[in-house]
Amino acid sequence: MSEEPDRRESPGDKPDHGGLTLTRRQVLKGAAGAVAAAALGGVALAQEPEDTTKLPGALTSARGGPSPFETLARAPVGRPSTSLTPLQDLDGMITPSGLHFERHHNGVPQINPHRYKLLVHGMVARPMVFTLDDLKRFPAVSRIYFVECSGNSGSGFVAPRAADTAQSVHGLTSTSEWVGVLMSTILKEVGPSKEAAWALYESHDAAVMTRSIPMEKLWKDAMLAYVQNGEAIRPEQGYPVRSILPGWEGNSQVKWVRRIEFSDQPWHTREETSKYTDPVCPPGDECHARQFTFLMDAKSVITWPSGGMTIPGRGIWEIKRIAWSGRGFIETVEVSTDGGRSWALAKLEQPVLPIAHTRFRFLWEWDGSPTTIMSRATDSTGYIQPSRQELIDLRGFVRGPTLEFSYHANYMQPWRVDNQGNVTNGLV
Amino acid sequence: MSEEPDRRESPGDKPDHGGLTLTRRQVLKGAAGAVAAAALGGVALAQEPEDTTKLPGALTSARGGPSPFETLARAPVGRPSTSLTPLQDLDGMITPSGLHFERHHNGVPQINPHRYKLLVHGMVARPMVFTLDDLKRFPAVSRIYFVECSGNSGSGFVAPRAADTAQSVHGLTSTSEWVGVLMSTILKEVGPSKEAAWALYESHDAAVMTRSIPMEKLWKDAMLAYVQNGEAIRPEQGYPVRSILPGWEGNSQVKWVRRIEFSDQPWHTREETSKYTDPVCPPGDECHARQFTFLMDAKSVITWPSGGMTIPGRGIWEIKRIAWSGRGFIETVEVSTDGGRSWALAKLEQPVLPIAHTRFRFLWEWDGSPTTIMSRATDSTGYIQPSRQELIDLRGFVRGPTLEFSYHANYMQPWRVDNQGNVTNGLV
Repeated sequence: MSEEPDRRESPGDKPDHGGLTLTRRQVLKGAAGAVAAAALGGVALAQEPEDTTKLPGALTSARGGPSPFETLARAPVGRPSTSLTPLQDLDGMITPSGLHFERHHNGVPQINPHRYKLLVHGMVARPMVFTLDDLKRFPAVSRIYFVECSGNSGSGFVAPRAADTAQSVHGLTSTSEWVGVLMSTILKEVGPSKEAAWALYESHDAAVMTRSIPMEKLWKDAMLAYVQNGEAIRPEQGYPVRSILPGWEGNSQVKWVRRIEFSDQPWHTREETSKYTDPVCPPGDECHARQFTFLMDAKSVITWPSGGMTIPGRGIWEIKRIAWSGRGFIETVEVSTDGGRSWALAKLEQPVLPIAHTRFRFLWEWDGSPTTIMSRATDSTGYIQPSRQELIDLRGFVRGPTLEFSYHANYMQPWRVDNQGNVTNGLV
Repeated sequence: MSEEPDRRESPGDKPDHGGLTLTRRQVLKGAAGAVAAAALGGVALAQEPEDTTKLPGALTSARGGPSPFETLARAPVGRPSTSLTPLQDLDGMITPSGLHFERHHNGVPQINPHRYKLLVHGMVARPMVFTLDDLKRFPAVSRIYFVECSGNSGSGFVAPRAADTAQSVHGLTSTSEWVGVLMSTILKEVGPSKEAAWALYESHDAAVMTRSIPMEKLWKDAMLAYVQNGEAIRPEQGYPVRSILPGWEGNSQVKWVRRIEFSDQPWHTREETSKYTDPVCPPGDECHARQFTFLMDAKSVITWPSGGMTIPGRGIWEIKRIAWSGRGFIETVEVSTDGGRSWALAKLEQPVLPIAHTRFRFLWEWDGSPTTIMSRATDSTGYIQPSRQELIDLRGFVRGPTLEFSYHANYMQPWRVDNQGNVTNGLV
């Protein structure tokens, strides 16, 4: 920022600072630019007006989009059915619906909401088929929850690279406001038998994704959601109806759900045997696979500054952004700016909601020396986010058979800052 | 919903209910449909697949949009610079950014964020110019607030029509999560003099919109926001920087702000003399114009069922949606389903945030008789939403010189239901 001479002006006057002065030539040039754009068919101006106060702006639109100067995008990763939220470019708690991460197993189905039906059957007194209108007629709740893929941060757990960014490693988490009907309401309609202990959720997609979910979760807080951030759920997130299991791994929250079946035992589907299980080799014990590890533990990531960025210079900067836990509230976030030797409490932004991205911020004076910054979350159950080494020690080994298998990697992310302000992955 | 025979199936089986059975003919037909769409250039399918489990769906995208089956839109009104949020089609607290109502006075300017500058000057010790990066460097806060045009609901106050809808009368209010710097932080930088009592905010738009704001508000909770619902503010809402004055009329929260000047008195700009003032003729007193009536009082609107809709049949329905107040929290929402004779408390959805749309819901059994439903909000200051007649009595007359002048119309909205379930404006 620069100081400017103090001047009093009436609102009708045009100030002559900050590049706002206009010459006749500039006005003409601005007008010519607008004419040229109009000749191109009236599409959004790539060429900006010289002075926006001299030319009328755009008229109203049925639905608005981002400024042409904004180019945020989800990043695709190896497989064609995964894309990552640009965490480092976002702020606040809500993730824009169009930038919510994607993970689908055979593409995004296009479902006609007028033909949509949900079958609920199995060990129930009254098997039923619900239309979308049927589901919308039930009392609805609104809840702000994160959804995180259980594979989030896995690549950085198994094989961290210097060039990792917040998006490339941690971009499989997003927060939305969901509206829908509680599963407890549906259960009261269909009347599960006493023996019913598990529910199978089946998707309408071309993978026919299926997951077994314990009944306790359905009674506790599970939802069938049809609204995301005010309007119909986006196709990539399960349009027209998805399961929400607050705080549980994303894969278990089946999208495009078309069938729910009740049984006295789990189904052991592909997604809970060959996938989405956790190989564990505890020291002094046999290796085994943990199944049905639904809960997403407490986690935090500094998104500014983060991998791939350069801190513009010395001085005071705000280290920021998100912490979350599938277990409840974020109680504290601590920040270290000396590689983990000392820690201080970050400020949490209100409202701190359970099972939602929580914004933290921490003022830091960077003196220009190389260092490592990191954050550590503690949730309302007292659970403390571990380091990568602590997770390795706990689980006995670093990786499963393939990269895909490193689920539930909620380690602390250190970012290394060099003396030029360049930020890289501190795990390398 | 309909009952279905109980069947147990393994996940690999295809159930034969709900139109999910597939014949070979249907699979072929589905495949042919996909081929036809591909021949059209791979654009989003208008023709839906016969069975989405039989064909791979769409791949990931950089940024997603609504399903092609969803056609929500802002509605333009008389002037080409106003559009209304489709309240009756939304749910929850957050308004999708692309559907946030619009009110601009000479179009939406296209501003280059790299050239953007904010001049802060006048009665200050240190006049300064800030770039966008300068503003982003300050400690930032995230707040969920509604923004409501002070003219919202004015047309229905002055001249209610039977065909009015929630959108057409009340659609000039929206709620977003805003991130930015508190004005108190900026004040500490520039050092206003003791005499400085008012700040002029000036817009970068072609109307050069200007409003005088009392200093108390700047110290209390005013923000300069640059993020809306996670990403950069949308062009229509003030990209790249807008003023947020929590709970005050939308017009006072200048968008595209380029200049803030301090003085010992207000400027009496066009927008606070010929516009955005309230003519009042109290009984037994002279008519006068109230100026600087910034605060938006408590209000509620039933958006389901609402004008233009038809209740599908008798039985239990959920009356719902929003209440808000510029003064603080919504304390209670009462609902009457007998034209105001009796009232009962609606359920408020958590979290109830100050100065934000708050979702209410109320279970109602409609017996098929004609009636009138309405809601009434009370906020945390004890202020109770008035009826239209109470507002008329208070202000002494129904309308100003033109329709445009009926600001701050926070009356209760009755909806009339006929014996066919058709809903119309109960004020007619």
